Amino acid sequence: MLPSKNKYLSNVSFDTVIFGFTGEELKILVLEYQNSGMFALPGGYIRRDKNLLDAVKEGVKRRTGLNKIHLEQFHTFGMLKRSDPEPTKIIARGLGYELEEDNWMLDRFITIGYYSLINYNQVKPKPNKYSDSINWYSINNLPPLMMDHEKIVEKALEVIRTDLLKKPIGINLLPEKFTMKELQKVHETILNKKLRRTTFQRKILNMDILKRHEKLFTGAANKAPYLYSFDKDKIENT
Amino acid sequence: MLPSKNKYLSNVSFDTVIFGFTGEELKILVLEYQNSGMFALPGGYIRRDKNLLDAVKEGVKRRTGLNKIHLEQFHTFGMLKRSDPEPTKIIARGLGYELEEDNWMLDRFITIGYYSLINYNQVKPKPNKYSDSINWYSINNLPPLMMDHEKIVEKALEVIRTDLLKKPIGINLLPEKFTMKELQKVHETILNKKLRRTTFQRKILNMDILKRHEKLFTGAANKAPYLYSFDKDKIENT
Repeated sequence: MLPSKNKYLSNVSFDTVIFGFTGEELKILVLEYQNSGMFALPGGYIRRDKNLLDAVKEGVKRRTGLNKIHLEQFHTFGMLKRSDPEPTKIIARGLGYELEEDNWMLDRFITIGYYSLINYNQVKPKPNKYSDSINWYSINNLPPLMMDHEKIVEKALEVIRTDLLKKPIGINLLPEKFTMKELQKVHETILNKKLRRTTFQRKILNMDILKRHEKLFTGAANKAPYLYSFDKDKIENT
Repeated sequence: MLPSKNKYLSNVSFDTVIFGFTGEELKILVLEYQNSGMFALPGGYIRRDKNLLDAVKEGVKRRTGLNKIHLEQFHTFGMLKRSDPEPTKIIARGLGYELEEDNWMLDRFITIGYYSLINYNQVKPKPNKYSDSINWYSINNLPPLMMDHEKIVEKALEVIRTDLLKKPIGINLLPEKFTMKELQKVHETILNKKLRRTTFQRKILNMDILKRHEKLFTGAANKAPYLYSFDKDKIENT
């Protein structure tokens, strides 16, 4: 059954950019709607009877199988030209429905963007009944996304780049303990450029959000790097 | 005539927090709806036939008389409990209209928040036909605002505090040329705390967005402070 106008708000939807880090690459989750060839960010309509964030969390869970991930609102998109009834018609047709011209889903939608940074290795996204597949794609090699979804990804990247030295962005992209080199790799991948080791270390240590632990034993004891973790007490107090 | 459902999007609106700086205090614009005792941020519905930002600019102009101000989107508010049909009924009644229970304006609205920082001395806000008055109020002495408008102000303050050392926040709050002391006063007022002169100077000069000019002649030549302006070339390239 298609989503009903009584259950959801009109003219406003959400879309999510869910980032994972493989150790080498930054990837995002993209789903493909059944029999439509349409690739999209996980998104959907907003339930009338729920707080916005709760509705978004529930929608993400339904679309991706991912539960309890931290979602950060980053921008609301309202260009006139983002509204195009065609993709929605094609998706509905792929599911076996022909939408009437006055169907509420074909109206203009303003969409609220959320991003999430999650542990690539610890999650298993699952497609729901509307989608053929949900897969990780490298941000440098995305399939053609529907509507303005590529712009939404660009904006999310712009925001996490700006937030890198303000928020503990790596916290869900890395294992609990990590080396400075691994954290630098996260920053380099997000910024898409090499950083100088000394400058990076100074900046990140200045943020005062890391805790230093024992050295990582690698066999070559003299060069063993320290392990770090994010200091949750300090992060919560800022 | 009341706004019509055919002209505006359903379930989504905008609100603006327009800041001005008197040299001593941070103030925001608050309007009072006619015969209702309702104080509100300048806001409204979103025209179906316009890009979101254009619709917001037009709405701000209509509500406040202010033209061509820079508006920055900062957060979209969607708590379930923000929706309350009573204030809208009271406002309509003040204008001589009794709304039917199923009127679209009484439905739930998610609102998109924008802030603006403008030159307090160079603008003359004007009420429109729906409002009794539009006035500057100190952020420390606001009238009771309708719905969740106080939360919207708090969030805007939180965002400009975080943005202070990232963006040239002072650019529209100060005259074109200003002393370091005047800029420090802007930061202190926004942060609501005293800053150390040396630390402030180091941080702001590190941002590399200021241009130094001649000294301000005060009569006591030895202590004349330098004048600064924001370096628009550098700002546009970041």
